[in-house]
Amino acid sequence: MTKAKPGAAIVALISGGLDSMVAGGLAREAGYRIFALTIDYNQRHRVELEAAGRVARMLGAERHIVMPLDLSQFGGSSLTDPDMAVQKTGLEPGIPTTYVPARNTIFLSVALGWAEAVGAHDLSIGINALDYSGYPDCRPEFITAFEAMAEQATKAGVEGQAFKVHAPLAAMSKADIAREAARLGLDAGQSWSCYDPLPNGRPCERCDSCRLRAKGFSEAGLIDPLLA
Amino acid sequence: MTKAKPGAAIVALISGGLDSMVAGGLAREAGYRIFALTIDYNQRHRVELEAAGRVARMLGAERHIVMPLDLSQFGGSSLTDPDMAVQKTGLEPGIPTTYVPARNTIFLSVALGWAEAVGAHDLSIGINALDYSGYPDCRPEFITAFEAMAEQATKAGVEGQAFKVHAPLAAMSKADIAREAARLGLDAGQSWSCYDPLPNGRPCERCDSCRLRAKGFSEAGLIDPLLA
Repeated sequence: MTKAKPGAAIVALISGGLDSMVAGGLAREAGYRIFALTIDYNQRHRVELEAAGRVARMLGAERHIVMPLDLSQFGGSSLTDPDMAVQKTGLEPGIPTTYVPARNTIFLSVALGWAEAVGAHDLSIGINALDYSGYPDCRPEFITAFEAMAEQATKAGVEGQAFKVHAPLAAMSKADIAREAARLGLDAGQSWSCYDPLPNGRPCERCDSCRLRAKGFSEAGLIDPLLA
Repeated sequence: MTKAKPGAAIVALISGGLDSMVAGGLAREAGYRIFALTIDYNQRHRVELEAAGRVARMLGAERHIVMPLDLSQFGGSSLTDPDMAVQKTGLEPGIPTTYVPARNTIFLSVALGWAEAVGAHDLSIGINALDYSGYPDCRPEFITAFEAMAEQATKAGVEGQAFKVHAPLAAMSKADIAREAARLGLDAGQSWSCYDPLPNGRPCERCDSCRLRAKGFSEAGLIDPLLA
């Protein structure tokens, strides 16, 4: 990520997962003041929210807002709809049931609102194209379209100040991300990735998210401190 | 608004105000099944939410979701920040303090999520370019940019199904809107526009929103049933 202008702030979407932690860590390394934003969308895996608080502290966030936004009212995703099962048979082609309709659009829009309110012009999100698991709103084409929209949507935008959506993991593999966490000195054991934890509070190690994370650490030749 | 395909649904943003009521009424007239969405963004004028419920019933909405989303956590607007005064000295040039950063972006994004979950490809919003009071996210350029973003953001979009954001009031004056309410048989007395009601529960008749509404009814030669 290119170096921040002195005093520049960034609204960093922090889910509690490994990817947004590393994206936030790269923003901190670039010199941004971190405003951490977590959307509590009534996801099944509530343990993510506790991880988000730990990650925001680890990143030295000036402020951390946890914003309740109950997307489970809409249904349509196994991550929010208790009547839909989380897929555990391994990665398959196509858009998986864990896709939450328009999730990143909604998250980035809320981040844009906070950014405009505090005079920030940068947002960060931990999306990842290689391992994007078939979500349309994880693709670079989406990010570009969002930036163009933000320019028309905001007071700062119409006054000529562009918004930049930083997606520094876009071209990284999960192994790259695991290595970046280590390089940045971020304890991946504080993050959380599992979609459907076991009753004993451990990751299930079978959902897509667990499988991708395990593959990443394995390929990087690193031990996942969360499983240690 | 062009006639809906048989069985087509629309997610209609309903604030409780006159404009979104008329936009929703035009969608109903066009034959859409109405899914009414109200965002409770912790606005000062809570009476709007009660009006939203009345309007959704009047429009025959199949479902009405009131989604809490506490934008007052960000501050930056006199509509959500109790430390900022609502401007009452009349309409002035520039972007007013009642502007809520990225509000329509956030609202349309949430609407997009619900639309995708229920298989709808249409959204309606009651924005109005002539009387837009200086808000950047009420301009047609914003709507066009949002549609382009939605195409990249969603499963339906990447599969070739475009989303249409209907803003049927975009080119109307407030007088046109008052006339449309009457033509559609919608009781404007059920809607609410005031940003800062009096202690007795009546509209203040001094804020920008009251002034625009009064001007509209006056120019249309109609009596506002809310003030009758």
